[in-house]
Amino acid sequence: MTEREALPSGGKAAYITEEVRRRIIEKEWRQGERIPDEAELAAEFGVARATVNKALQMLAEEGLLDRRRRAGTRVAVNPVRKASFSIPIVREQVEAAGMSYSHRLISQSRSPLPERHAARLGLPAGEVLIHQRAVHYGDRRPFQLEDRWINPRAVPGIETVDFHHMNANEWLVRNAPYLRAELNFSACSAGVRDARLLETKPEQALLILNRTTWNDSGPITTVRLAFHPGYVMTATT
Amino acid sequence: MTEREALPSGGKAAYITEEVRRRIIEKEWRQGERIPDEAELAAEFGVARATVNKALQMLAEEGLLDRRRRAGTRVAVNPVRKASFSIPIVREQVEAAGMSYSHRLISQSRSPLPERHAARLGLPAGEVLIHQRAVHYGDRRPFQLEDRWINPRAVPGIETVDFHHMNANEWLVRNAPYLRAELNFSACSAGVRDARLLETKPEQALLILNRTTWNDSGPITTVRLAFHPGYVMTATT
Repeated sequence: MTEREALPSGGKAAYITEEVRRRIIEKEWRQGERIPDEAELAAEFGVARATVNKALQMLAEEGLLDRRRRAGTRVAVNPVRKASFSIPIVREQVEAAGMSYSHRLISQSRSPLPERHAARLGLPAGEVLIHQRAVHYGDRRPFQLEDRWINPRAVPGIETVDFHHMNANEWLVRNAPYLRAELNFSACSAGVRDARLLETKPEQALLILNRTTWNDSGPITTVRLAFHPGYVMTATT
Repeated sequence: MTEREALPSGGKAAYITEEVRRRIIEKEWRQGERIPDEAELAAEFGVARATVNKALQMLAEEGLLDRRRRAGTRVAVNPVRKASFSIPIVREQVEAAGMSYSHRLISQSRSPLPERHAARLGLPAGEVLIHQRAVHYGDRRPFQLEDRWINPRAVPGIETVDFHHMNANEWLVRNAPYLRAELNFSACSAGVRDARLLETKPEQALLILNRTTWNDSGPITTVRLAFHPGYVMTATT
């Protein structure tokens, strides 16, 4: 008990969280139903209202409860649980899989932004951005192919980076915190260039992730990642 | 101001959250760096330590800060922002896209769990589960194909549901809250059966999502979803 009591009411709030979760899972409180208010729960559990509030807030963040001022707290009908998708440093991913990492910058240029990216990025087509193609390797086999646009206006200092030595993925993760990201998952048949760079055959099914990040100066980068055939991306709640 | 003050210190905590976020984004506080402690920030902002604590906790949950007892609070090196992946009710998804929804149950049986699912589910191979194949349609065109196993021991009452009328996806979302989910994204070339049910050609690249959910009685369901060609799944932080 000593350790639990050392946490400011953490033990009690955790107990209430578990108990409320149990009541929802076992259908004592059903989806859509209003649950007792904080004062009632505080009396039932013999704790301060703030402790109940903390516990319910955790469950609301998990998506099990819907909390509305005035309307009270209800069991969520369709719990939105948040799955973790960090933006990984690919080098670390490859090394964590026990492979040796390498990287090849295929091309880099300052190029006018194509129409197809302009609307999503909220930038005018034709604006000059940094355009790169690169391959990440694990044990010299292609792991992931990237086709990336970087907005230098959102990332001061990027124009002086030598991307032959530090790849853009790792540089951006370490140096350009983002406020917002959008991820789009799809599948496509490898075109001739994808197949050549991934050292696979054309028409092979590939998992594609288009990812765009923003900070308060605008879009940072948009990247199309094509993974080697057979790659599985996992997220857990 | 009246409404903000009605929130218990919500306005002040929100201000501190914004200001700390700004310092991180603008690199006044750099990634990996230790930030001032709660007492210093409380003095700087003229608020209670509890308010600072609340603000920093929100930023930690967003992934911008790393908080360790004793080691203090640092700007996260690789912020893990959480992307929202709810488990949608497919009928609602289809209708939200302006299409009329229909559903076809292709097969249903009580079948022994195959070896390939056993380890992931934490159930013995051969245990009898409900096995279903079904197609969701939008305007009578295949939208999504599912191959699903349901564990009746985790979902009391499911054995009496008529899945010709209520599809398993909607029934489970409404009736079986989960504690934990695992999502696996991949791509595959459509096999003959996938192609026939999705009314596309074999070898077409398909986005595949394998999704498993658990409650405290064990695994609820594991499902392989194959999306119609061209489908894009989006998540935002």
